[in-house]
Amino acid sequence: MTFRRRLYITLDPSERGGLSEQIFEFFLVIIIILNIITITIDSVGDIDREYGTHFRRFENFSLIFFTLEYIARIYSIVEKPKYNHPIKGRLKFAATPLAIIDLLTFLPFYLAFLPLDLRVLRIFRLMSLFRMFKIARYLQALEIFKRVIVERKEQLVLSFLFILFILVIISFAMYYVEHDAQPDKFSSIPAAMWWGIATLTTVGYGDLVPITSLGKFLGGIFAIAGVALLALPAGVLSSGFFELLYNDRKQKTHHCPHCGKEFHDAE
Amino acid sequence: MTFRRRLYITLDPSERGGLSEQIFEFFLVIIIILNIITITIDSVGDIDREYGTHFRRFENFSLIFFTLEYIARIYSIVEKPKYNHPIKGRLKFAATPLAIIDLLTFLPFYLAFLPLDLRVLRIFRLMSLFRMFKIARYLQALEIFKRVIVERKEQLVLSFLFILFILVIISFAMYYVEHDAQPDKFSSIPAAMWWGIATLTTVGYGDLVPITSLGKFLGGIFAIAGVALLALPAGVLSSGFFELLYNDRKQKTHHCPHCGKEFHDAE
Amino acid sequence: MTFRRRLYITLDPSERGGLSEQIFEFFLVIIIILNIITITIDSVGDIDREYGTHFRRFENFSLIFFTLEYIARIYSIVEKPKYNHPIKGRLKFAATPLAIIDLLTFLPFYLAFLPLDLRVLRIFRLMSLFRMFKIARYLQALEIFKRVIVERKEQLVLSFLFILFILVIISFAMYYVEHDAQPDKFSSIPAAMWWGIATLTTVGYGDLVPITSLGKFLGGIFAIAGVALLALPAGVLSSGFFELLYNDRKQKTHHCPHCGKEFHDAE
Amino acid sequence: MTFRRRLYITLDPSERGGLSEQIFEFFLVIIIILNIITITIDSVGDIDREYGTHFRRFENFSLIFFTLEYIARIYSIVEKPKYNHPIKGRLKFAATPLAIIDLLTFLPFYLAFLPLDLRVLRIFRLMSLFRMFKIARYLQALEIFKRVIVERKEQLVLSFLFILFILVIISFAMYYVEHDAQPDKFSSIPAAMWWGIATLTTVGYGDLVPITSLGKFLGGIFAIAGVALLALPAGVLSSGFFELLYNDRKQKTHHCPHCGKEFHDAE
Repeated sequence: MTFRRRLYITLDPSERGGLSEQIFEFFLVIIIILNIITITIDSVGDIDREYGTHFRRFENFSLIFFTLEYIARIYSIVEKPKYNHPIKGRLKFAATPLAIIDLLTFLPFYLAFLPLDLRVLRIFRLMSLFRMFKIARYLQALEIFKRVIVERKEQLVLSFLFILFILVIISFAMYYVEHDAQPDKFSSIPAAMWWGIATLTTVGYGDLVPITSLGKFLGGIFAIAGVALLALPAGVLSSGFFELLYNDRKQKTHHCPHCGKEFHDAE
Repeated sequence: MTFRRRLYITLDPSERGGLSEQIFEFFLVIIIILNIITITIDSVGDIDREYGTHFRRFENFSLIFFTLEYIARIYSIVEKPKYNHPIKGRLKFAATPLAIIDLLTFLPFYLAFLPLDLRVLRIFRLMSLFRMFKIARYLQALEIFKRVIVERKEQLVLSFLFILFILVIISFAMYYVEHDAQPDKFSSIPAAMWWGIATLTTVGYGDLVPITSLGKFLGGIFAIAGVALLALPAGVLSSGFFELLYNDRKQKTHHCPHCGKEFHDAE
Repeated sequence: MTFRRRLYITLDPSERGGLSEQIFEFFLVIIIILNIITITIDSVGDIDREYGTHFRRFENFSLIFFTLEYIARIYSIVEKPKYNHPIKGRLKFAATPLAIIDLLTFLPFYLAFLPLDLRVLRIFRLMSLFRMFKIARYLQALEIFKRVIVERKEQLVLSFLFILFILVIISFAMYYVEHDAQPDKFSSIPAAMWWGIATLTTVGYGDLVPITSLGKFLGGIFAIAGVALLALPAGVLSSGFFELLYNDRKQKTHHCPHCGKEFHDAE
Repeated sequence: MTFRRRLYITLDPSERGGLSEQIFEFFLVIIIILNIITITIDSVGDIDREYGTHFRRFENFSLIFFTLEYIARIYSIVEKPKYNHPIKGRLKFAATPLAIIDLLTFLPFYLAFLPLDLRVLRIFRLMSLFRMFKIARYLQALEIFKRVIVERKEQLVLSFLFILFILVIISFAMYYVEHDAQPDKFSSIPAAMWWGIATLTTVGYGDLVPITSLGKFLGGIFAIAGVALLALPAGVLSSGFFELLYNDRKQKTHHCPHCGKEFHDAE
């Protein structure tokens, strides 16, 4: 086996490459998780002052690691029949969403050496989040949720449209009712929508609360309606999830204890 | 085909009028959505100052559009066998809820030219919300929810009666318990009801919170009871939704135990 | 038919007494609902000052009405075979929960004429709530919920025991973690329990919030756990409700279109 | 029967020891519940000042009781075939989780007599919570939940991983969006995570709330997404619970299509 072939098998999760693939996969997931933890706790001022230099060092290491990983992927991808042309194949692969995510995990940091202003640099920093999506490739967990969401796509979209519909009505009403009493809080319809979302989802931060009698009366009705409303997408999702689990289980084979033959449940 | 017939087919969503109907439908939905977005963002003071005149212009255009649409609908409706009498048919159509909603989307704006006081004008402005209901005609999504709600009407009403029942008990109790400690917050039973709704729905704004030991003890029990209680309408709705989806998917086959033949539910 | 028999049939909801029973039932429900509304809105200071005397007059009328109703019930109950002994039967009936509730709806008001202190009077006033329970007799709605709760009693008790178990652990932990940082807020374990209930039920008033890092970390885990936990009683209730509706429906009779005979679903 | 055998049967809940076992079990549960209530209400300053000495006396009694119980368990466990070696068997039993919990319920209190600083003593005090876990041994209720959780382990872990995944994305985004506007509130990514958890679980304390337009827009989307997200573990748990109850109730009969005979699931 050539080095390139071996590299390809190691890097591509869809190939069953044995031990080398598993070791690489494990190592990559660890680095990504450490990256997320590092960024998270480094955002705490005190921790940054004390351990900042170590975190920076780890970040530089990750940067080099992700860069090398990207180069290795581009180099070895021609082993895949789909991308077997040396130039066109590699470009085609580089244009896939996963390859773009890979590129975005390190590219912004090289651009960061350019004399750019701080706002732009911060957006680049946010891109480090894309590293997390690299993990998604290895998580079969997300596959199940994806199947549920895809299968119930239509009803989910309808549910959210319906919620949006009610949200607009509620927010319009509350704006006209509460604006005079609290012009600084219910200052506009988008502001009333912020209240509407907090109420319909039952989050209820309490930063915006109706104070007029009519506003409280309407708000109370909306709050009760909200709970019923959100039962719709929740019901769609959980019934979809339930069906999936059920179907996976139902496929099971029965053994007749009388004649010994096998059969499946008649759907 | 006469012009009136063509117009009728274009305007009526229940007729399959081909391309012209689809174009009109798409155009109408876009105008209504833009109207809602316009009203929403125009309520923000800064945006109104800068772009207000453009929004006003778009509103006047919508006004004329909705007026013409209404006239066209009234004119062409006699093509429908149900409303085929030139005067009585048109009046009968104009009295249907959908036609009244159509009328309410533009009529208040003409009345707005009359020397009315600002309070009345604001109520008229709220009527622009009715434009959104015009979209409902085209949204099949709402049809599904309507079917669930209609089918489970009885149980939903019972659930809400039960919640109301509990809410009254809770609010009476909390009023008598907390009124002395917080006379300005739990000032009356309706005020206690506002707390009760925020707690039973788990919205929990935090503007009203019991402070006495007994109040907190009762409040805690009510909060836990609230979650269980709201499982009732949520369960009714989601099970109704589930049943609808499930029934649409498979029609049950019965085996007659008398003659052994198979048949499907007549639905 | 004697007057007593006629009275008995009119008053007892379990007897199908025709028109007179329906009129009485309707009248009673209206009076009770008006009583609740009266007490509710009379608790608002401004309304009491203006309309208080009218409300008082209506209350006195209700008082007499409920008293007469109670006397009529006691007088006519001997028509029921179960209570047919003139003295022992009536005493036995008077000792049933429903008769005691009936008595409590008016008795406290007569005691209120005695020179008692205000605290005791207020408790008597709270007893006017019992009037609402009189309605429960006529509401078949509550019957369904009662059936669900009775059927799933065991699992509901287990769920709540489990929630209580978790609540105690959470509250102990949060008390020891947050007490030093907020001695006035997390002042005791019962105080921490108030936070725990608000968090587990996702009400989240925000009057008590952990401020230490460890407290926020634990609080976050508890909040996520809380949602999963409360899915238990909610799931029990809604699945019980679902099963009840389903069984009611499943009992339906099928007509075989081939042989015309009827049959039921084989459970 | 020897004294040791009698003791063993009384103490071990897995042995059906008749009356003596039931009396001991009842007595133990009462002592543990009283212990928890004592610790809970003793944490209230006023109550501690008045009744503290009584509570301390009860605590010392419990201490001796739990110590004697532990010694009796260790002494009698050799009656169990699994632990029948006088020294190795007892050590093996002492190393089981339940025996360690038993030890932790009283050991810290003896260590408390040593001159240790207050922080360590407080941690020991928290260990009194372990007494509650002793009850778990006798609660069959927890068995059902354990079965549901074990059976749905995989999907629950996936759900929580997915929620964690979304939580990280949300918190990163909100930190970068809100940090400049509220540097003291959204001070770090962990702080933003606290907001994220409160929002995704719909607890919504309201101590951290986005104030920028972009923050509110993102926050609104996250809040709606949160409700849908939490439907996943809730759906998994409640469907698992439902399945368990349902399967316990009826064991499915299968008809073998080959030989026509009936049989039940071997489970």
